[in-house]
Amino acid sequence: MTTQKATNITWHEHVVKREDLEKLHGHKGATIWFTGLSGSGKSTLANAVASKLHEMKVSTFVLDGDNIRHGLNKDLGFSAQERVENIRRIGEVAKLFSTAGVVNLTAFISPYKSDRNLARSLQADSFIEVYCEADLAVCEERDPKGMYKKARAGQIKNFTGIDDPYEVPESPELRVPTGSKPIDACVEQVIAYLKTRKVI
Amino acid sequence: MTTQKATNITWHEHVVKREDLEKLHGHKGATIWFTGLSGSGKSTLANAVASKLHEMKVSTFVLDGDNIRHGLNKDLGFSAQERVENIRRIGEVAKLFSTAGVVNLTAFISPYKSDRNLARSLQADSFIEVYCEADLAVCEERDPKGMYKKARAGQIKNFTGIDDPYEVPESPELRVPTGSKPIDACVEQVIAYLKTRKVI
Repeated sequence: MTTQKATNITWHEHVVKREDLEKLHGHKGATIWFTGLSGSGKSTLANAVASKLHEMKVSTFVLDGDNIRHGLNKDLGFSAQERVENIRRIGEVAKLFSTAGVVNLTAFISPYKSDRNLARSLQADSFIEVYCEADLAVCEERDPKGMYKKARAGQIKNFTGIDDPYEVPESPELRVPTGSKPIDACVEQVIAYLKTRKVI
Repeated sequence: MTTQKATNITWHEHVVKREDLEKLHGHKGATIWFTGLSGSGKSTLANAVASKLHEMKVSTFVLDGDNIRHGLNKDLGFSAQERVENIRRIGEVAKLFSTAGVVNLTAFISPYKSDRNLARSLQADSFIEVYCEADLAVCEERDPKGMYKKARAGQIKNFTGIDDPYEVPESPELRVPTGSKPIDACVEQVIAYLKTRKVI
């Protein structure tokens, strides 16, 4: 019994807490959740903000389709249920990174309010929702992956903005005009907000 | 078209790479995968190593039952298939943390070689398997959560070491005698290895 108790005490003495990690990094952990239509510039903006933060010695990590869909969520398809699970897992991983004192930036369409609100509920005050505001016409003209063309041709079903809804955030922490303003201005807007919120 | 191309170029210019994050943190990203019987001291050791690394200004994060089973993997039960999926997801999250330049420490029984090898295959040379070596008798005497008692009484089925196998690692990067040596000596062994491997 002595051994057991001692082990437990040791365990409690040795835990590195979120505050410790934030102090080490010199800033808070937080999730910047970029949401918007395909082609609205979520990934572009997330990576540009991460790059700017990196210059400022902030510990960052971008979660996007490239590292999630081919890894953690590669078992998920695009049914309604699987899309919910996709966002749920991303929300949970984002929370882990926030707990690790890392400013993590997620770039997923995440079209449904309920899914975004679930992700928010996991960490409450370190969740920053950024709506990448761009008209469908602009996104469709950009069409970086040729997805809109396929969706219009009926080759892709349930494509957000075409035959599946995008629920515009009602009260996101930030609305960034990614459809009309240059990237640098959008980056500055996010950085300024992070300072206001005392994340950095 | 001009807009689209410009956006793509910007994206590529702005990506923060793993090497950049490792340089910022002043060490490599890596997964230290602690495996062993229930009660062998995986969590104790993982947290103690993290604490020591933290003192050394290393960016760390511990993944364990507390933050995974109640979060990311709360939809998973204990069937054979779900246990495989449990470890697969942990392996994917560990990989993300390594890519973020964080020394992440996982503390899960992970009794099957095939599951541990899958986790290893995701990141190859930044995966460090640490076998927490402790006799079943020692673990059962410690029984920190009273699980062995329940398993012996038949109240828990398929409990590792009792009525489910633990596959001892054949060639782990490290074997740490957590069943017989004091915690401080075990911590030192892991830290020394991380230096040898030039993780820190």
